[in-house]
Amino acid sequence: MKKVEPRTLSGFMELLPNDQLKFNKIADTIRQTFEKFGFLPLDTPVIEASEVLLAKAGGETEKQIYQIKRGDSDLTLRFDLTVPLAKYVAKNYGFLNFPFRRYQIGKVYRGERAQKGRFREFYQCDIDIIGDGELNLINDAEIPCIINSIFNNIGLSDYVIKLNNRKLITGYFEHLTIENNNVKIMRIIDKISKIGMGDVINELKKINIDSNSINELLSFVNNNGSNEEKINKIKALEIENPLFKKGVKELEFVYNYIKLFGLNDDIIDIDFKISRGLDYYTGTVYETFLKNNPEIGSICSGGRYDNLAEFYTDKPLPGVGISIGLTRLFDKLLEYDLIKEEKPKISDFLIIPMTDNYEYIINIYNKLIIKNFNTQIFYEKRSLKSIINYAVKLNIPYIIFIGDDEINNQKITIKNLSTYEQKTIDIEEIERYRKDINE
Amino acid sequence: MKKVEPRTLSGFMELLPNDQLKFNKIADTIRQTFEKFGFLPLDTPVIEASEVLLAKAGGETEKQIYQIKRGDSDLTLRFDLTVPLAKYVAKNYGFLNFPFRRYQIGKVYRGERAQKGRFREFYQCDIDIIGDGELNLINDAEIPCIINSIFNNIGLSDYVIKLNNRKLITGYFEHLTIENNNVKIMRIIDKISKIGMGDVINELKKINIDSNSINELLSFVNNNGSNEEKINKIKALEIENPLFKKGVKELEFVYNYIKLFGLNDDIIDIDFKISRGLDYYTGTVYETFLKNNPEIGSICSGGRYDNLAEFYTDKPLPGVGISIGLTRLFDKLLEYDLIKEEKPKISDFLIIPMTDNYEYIINIYNKLIIKNFNTQIFYEKRSLKSIINYAVKLNIPYIIFIGDDEINNQKITIKNLSTYEQKTIDIEEIERYRKDINE
Repeated sequence: MKKVEPRTLSGFMELLPNDQLKFNKIADTIRQTFEKFGFLPLDTPVIEASEVLLAKAGGETEKQIYQIKRGDSDLTLRFDLTVPLAKYVAKNYGFLNFPFRRYQIGKVYRGERAQKGRFREFYQCDIDIIGDGELNLINDAEIPCIINSIFNNIGLSDYVIKLNNRKLITGYFEHLTIENNNVKIMRIIDKISKIGMGDVINELKKINIDSNSINELLSFVNNNGSNEEKINKIKALEIENPLFKKGVKELEFVYNYIKLFGLNDDIIDIDFKISRGLDYYTGTVYETFLKNNPEIGSICSGGRYDNLAEFYTDKPLPGVGISIGLTRLFDKLLEYDLIKEEKPKISDFLIIPMTDNYEYIINIYNKLIIKNFNTQIFYEKRSLKSIINYAVKLNIPYIIFIGDDEINNQKITIKNLSTYEQKTIDIEEIERYRKDINE
Repeated sequence: MKKVEPRTLSGFMELLPNDQLKFNKIADTIRQTFEKFGFLPLDTPVIEASEVLLAKAGGETEKQIYQIKRGDSDLTLRFDLTVPLAKYVAKNYGFLNFPFRRYQIGKVYRGERAQKGRFREFYQCDIDIIGDGELNLINDAEIPCIINSIFNNIGLSDYVIKLNNRKLITGYFEHLTIENNNVKIMRIIDKISKIGMGDVINELKKINIDSNSINELLSFVNNNGSNEEKINKIKALEIENPLFKKGVKELEFVYNYIKLFGLNDDIIDIDFKISRGLDYYTGTVYETFLKNNPEIGSICSGGRYDNLAEFYTDKPLPGVGISIGLTRLFDKLLEYDLIKEEKPKISDFLIIPMTDNYEYIINIYNKLIIKNFNTQIFYEKRSLKSIINYAVKLNIPYIIFIGDDEINNQKITIKNLSTYEQKTIDIEEIERYRKDINE
């Protein structure tokens, strides 16, 4: 029979089991932390009507979407979890309890040019808090604390959550009367760490920003010092623009509440350079970097928006949210060897039958299962070496031998695969191994 | 602004949060049970190259697939989890440990005609055990025990796992010399409970089965009595067909081992009518029905196959597996009100600030979070009635009031929303509520 090559598309992550276990452990931590903070799970379809999904999107998105045409229907794979959320909230408005705290962990699809570290199918882990008409600014302070809790639980360290406010930036642009180029300027500023100051100046000149404004702007965004010093310095500028003043007030409020929530000050970095590319955000913005690996880029970004679902409903639905790009993050954690869990295991015990008399063996197995030990029996005829190799590769900590001697004496022989210690014991003595297994 | 109607495609399940919590609880139970029995997680892409995914598929599948054409590439959304598993095992053969026990819980896509209870996007929860060259028949007996454990843990009762063997059926057809219509006959027999005996006889006549054979066949498949009686009856037929004899031997072996694994005999029903439509299976076959709602059809089916990945590799990879159609099952459980968990909750406590002095409030919140209580603060200005309504709708068991009195006395006031009992306590006394919350 002619064979088809069993290949996986490039840009699609497909892990070997041990890495998949590590991935799932991180995804579980994220999920449990989201739930701890009161976020409700959501699971929207991967496929939506193109008309619904692309209600807002511009040309850039359309180039990247995966589109399906079937008969009359024009369908699209979701490219993020925010548009489906907007649709969901508009559709189910009357059935939801506001503020609506929801999380969603799911795959999204973007047909970007395939290159190393870029994925076309990837997991986003999103939380959003949606208000009905209004939403207290303290929510903006809670978001970084949740992210901090997740990264702590994953065992990541050396991350920093950057904080800024879009009103503050836009107000400052108004003050310099360069607000017409608002989004363009933000995108250029955003690249300082990538392309360097010289190129940033050139790019700003290209869009006709005058030298004076460029100087003021760059000195503004390169504000150094502690977070409090930074806030104090921009307050001391005494800029009278109302949007700017509102932005400063919001930023200071959010920062103070972040401290109240107990976040270590060195995890937060107020940075006037960050703004998120999207025109979507209207207040607080977040980006998260690994201090030792800033080249990875932001691993977790988000912010405050005034109106989640304006393309679907007249209801004002302000919100604040953040998204972890899990597939890319995991890929980088693997590459940089930053995952703590080294030996993920699926089973506690592997029973190796040394006889064909299975009645006693399965009896022991049933007892272990009832006692809630994850247990397998190795039924195949193989060399003992090869069976032990199976256990070692799966990180199973203990093997249990059962042969005729064990059956005659109603015992089991248990061997620790780390210490090679071996003991013949009564099945009821198995409890003493539980602590060791769970460590 | 012109609004787009926020609709969800028909045939795509999208749940409200309380139902989603129930769904997730069942999915978690399935996942945990799979892991308990030593199955490794897999997460293959939703999109594969059409050439890879359709290597085996016939015309029926092609009509139902979701196909994506992007530039030169011809892509397809997976329509099951078995073909991706075959690809995966063939591709990663050298990196896997055999027998390879894997589970996958994921969405699959079939563009079937939309009708009530039929989904175009649905979750399958699959386990398979793949052998390298051979696979012990005891594995076939383990599968129903895992399914039993899942349904037990979900809180389902009154289910029955039907058991048959394809060698036995095919051998019996050979014995009647009607084996040329093998698959057609199996499909007709499979419909007895749906269309009744009369129509089955007519359909068999239509494909030119003679009356004698029809009579023998129907008496064979309608074999009544206990499982042991059924096996004894077909053994007593003394049919000398080798395939039949092998099938009987396998069925008896699997049945005996199922009992050894401790399964209650009334959960297993040997039924010579079931065969699974697919030509894929070569030995044991399973189907699972709810005794009180057989009209739902099989909620969990599978079987033994000789060669998982013959379209991708020359390696013989026999296996046995089973699949739960979770979306459809969940839909029916909701419809028939068969889900035990009535009040799924996301948070243990809702803190209601009765003052604008947030320092103490957030201090209490931080302590509850550190103590691992799932906690929210309600920041918005709303009437107390409306806030309590929020807590009730989210099934939050306790609300905590903090006002100036509580701050002055360094206390909290906690109210049980079931009993309306209210107490002012010290935060350290909160531990006594843990047991109640976890019940």
